[in-house]
Amino acid sequence: LEDENIDEFRTLFLDIHPYERAKFYAKLPKDARMHVYHFLSPEEMAEVFENLEIEDTEYEELLSEMNPTFVADMLSQMYADDAVDVLNELDKEQVASYLTIMDDEAAGEIKQLLHYEEYTAGSIMTTEFIAIHSNQTVKSAMYILKKEAPRAETIYYVYVIDEEKRLVGVISLRDLIVSDDDTMVYEIMSDRVVSVSVSEDQEEVARKMRDYNFLAVPVIDFQNHLLGIITVDDIIDVMEEEASDDYSKLAGITDVDSADKNIFSAAKKRLPWLIILSFLGMMTASLIGRFEDTLDQIAILAVFIPLIAGMAGNTGTQALAVAVRRIAIGDDKEENKLFLIIREAGTGVITGAVCGIIIMLVVYFWKSDFFLGLLVGFSIFITLIVATLAGALVPLIMHKFKVDPAVASGPFITTINDIISILIYFGFASLFMNYLVQ
Amino acid sequence: LEDENIDEFRTLFLDIHPYERAKFYAKLPKDARMHVYHFLSPEEMAEVFENLEIEDTEYEELLSEMNPTFVADMLSQMYADDAVDVLNELDKEQVASYLTIMDDEAAGEIKQLLHYEEYTAGSIMTTEFIAIHSNQTVKSAMYILKKEAPRAETIYYVYVIDEEKRLVGVISLRDLIVSDDDTMVYEIMSDRVVSVSVSEDQEEVARKMRDYNFLAVPVIDFQNHLLGIITVDDIIDVMEEEASDDYSKLAGITDVDSADKNIFSAAKKRLPWLIILSFLGMMTASLIGRFEDTLDQIAILAVFIPLIAGMAGNTGTQALAVAVRRIAIGDDKEENKLFLIIREAGTGVITGAVCGIIIMLVVYFWKSDFFLGLLVGFSIFITLIVATLAGALVPLIMHKFKVDPAVASGPFITTINDIISILIYFGFASLFMNYLVQ
Repeated sequence: LEDENIDEFRTLFLDIHPYERAKFYAKLPKDARMHVYHFLSPEEMAEVFENLEIEDTEYEELLSEMNPTFVADMLSQMYADDAVDVLNELDKEQVASYLTIMDDEAAGEIKQLLHYEEYTAGSIMTTEFIAIHSNQTVKSAMYILKKEAPRAETIYYVYVIDEEKRLVGVISLRDLIVSDDDTMVYEIMSDRVVSVSVSEDQEEVARKMRDYNFLAVPVIDFQNHLLGIITVDDIIDVMEEEASDDYSKLAGITDVDSADKNIFSAAKKRLPWLIILSFLGMMTASLIGRFEDTLDQIAILAVFIPLIAGMAGNTGTQALAVAVRRIAIGDDKEENKLFLIIREAGTGVITGAVCGIIIMLVVYFWKSDFFLGLLVGFSIFITLIVATLAGALVPLIMHKFKVDPAVASGPFITTINDIISILIYFGFASLFMNYLVQ
Repeated sequence: LEDENIDEFRTLFLDIHPYERAKFYAKLPKDARMHVYHFLSPEEMAEVFENLEIEDTEYEELLSEMNPTFVADMLSQMYADDAVDVLNELDKEQVASYLTIMDDEAAGEIKQLLHYEEYTAGSIMTTEFIAIHSNQTVKSAMYILKKEAPRAETIYYVYVIDEEKRLVGVISLRDLIVSDDDTMVYEIMSDRVVSVSVSEDQEEVARKMRDYNFLAVPVIDFQNHLLGIITVDDIIDVMEEEASDDYSKLAGITDVDSADKNIFSAAKKRLPWLIILSFLGMMTASLIGRFEDTLDQIAILAVFIPLIAGMAGNTGTQALAVAVRRIAIGDDKEENKLFLIIREAGTGVITGAVCGIIIMLVVYFWKSDFFLGLLVGFSIFITLIVATLAGALVPLIMHKFKVDPAVASGPFITTINDIISILIYFGFASLFMNYLVQ
């Protein structure tokens, strides 16, 4: 297919959906891709790149295969936010060189967007929106809309601005369509516009769009000037990213989602955590080492170490997950925190009591040793309370100090709780040793 | 505010965004809610309910506060998919009684939707779409669109059907707007419609909409009849649900997201896993019990139990998370599986070797006991390989048997790997005991 016929390729390729075009292109070997660059215009290639889903590091390679003028043309044909996503993966010199050969208008828009900090509303917004004035008629608004439609990222919301480009209203295409031609825009526009600030966190933006069921939201600066819009497709990507980020961290792995080309890159994502954890584990070991005398006398104590440590780890992970999600949902007002801690303590008491009694009985009947059962069961009870509190407190404290609470990953809390649980267990064991020595 | 003035309340209430209205309503005490039902029409109340975010169990209480005719009126004014969401929370008799007092058209639509199985495309779709024929002009299509706009869930895509209601094309409002009035629909419609089947899993639908950046997707039966559409706001809810579901399961907790009214409901969500895990933990304990003789002779072995078990648990959770996500993303073609297992084994060898050597050296220098270091390090090496494989295999096997792989939660894998690691560790220890006895 690829090797000769331009026309046939173009007919087939342009007939399929842009997302499928991008998928097809991403799978091609290098020499076939070189053909594609000659068969397609920069504009057509721009559509492919807007839909491309590849590793961040691959953009550089793909762009280097093309003629720089072609790249510049393509980038200026892309929606500005998508072009910025691509450019963010290149080094500064490359970006500068592409921007100089680009036409001035597109370069200007892109430069402006490159400015904003990562993970803010500014970094995911696009400047291709449609703006009208409030003293227009619906008819003239529709005229502007038709004219600008090919270039705008969405035409389903039209924003109303005043002479100083301040956002004063919003009107949906739905409202425009059902209104009479000579209605004035200010009569039908909504002047209570929900907007986001350009420096707002992208997670916050996602939450707003989800709650309000918006297809797009306007982005403003602190003086209420309309700077851009964020569309729902960008928000879906943000939500996916954040969800998989939280998930990865709970599992103690750098990035769970990207395809690993080989075992070394996979190992690289897991080793940092594993190495930190082995040192924390050595601490646990040295802690038990301090109780070697106790252990020498009552070897059976060792039997229950994994049980107690495991329960502490599990209950800590549960409390952690609840706390991280609650913070992520934004349910973190000051007055709630004390309440949350009290509630976690209460939950710890209940789960600790239930599990403690079950385990006490099992150990008692299994080993026919009442004091051993009591020791293990009581240790479980105390351990679960403390571990639950630790799981809930660590993310809260991290959040307080503006650290992303999700970095307190499951394995980390698990290991911390291992240590706590062993201290509690051997502490009690040493105290009541007289009752235990057989 | 609430106590007297109807007009003032209506002006203020109807001026804010429906989402804010719903939030306001949800926070009202019962007696204030009773006022609201008298102040608002069923139609206005329907808009509130469409935007309500409450616990599933609360719907029953709220509806019972209203007059049944009011409820029926309200439900028939809601978008059919939202009404079905509410009705799904009631028992069958209540649903039947509301449906009988509802007007026939709305009741018919809702009955049809109640039919579909949970978590399928059918269960989240709505029947309020706009359909036209291909031999219409753009002008007449726009006329239909304007007429149906108030009732349709989205007007931004218009679906083209033939005489037998089979889906033959799609056209966006954008395309309609930029076309001349007398263009024929078949000239500008796209006849390669991406659609989903009514029985398709909702996660699959979400994936498609995300990949193709759709605002809505048509739902068809096996004969290509257009049954309904799914809009992007429903998909965002699905994505949130699935992400938080996976997250909860990794943490070993039933539901991480819903607000817990009291410590008992919080404990209830955590106890099932904790109890299962305490029995698994008892198995670990009885396993160590079998090595009591070994332990009696070399008490220092106990010191490294949590380290080894912890490393096994952590690495297993990492492998689990990667496998679960990969299956969720749909990257689970047959030929990939063997490759995935080989890759996980390779990753296990690398991480095992690195951690094993580090730990061997630390133990050697700490305890000045070469054989102990070798034993612990080598156990870590073998354990990490096996634990990584277990973490990757369990979800794959579950997926094979059509069980949701995410139920293989982190704590579950952790405990399984505890057992494996202890077997390996004490197995080696018993074998090489002669070298170890001090």
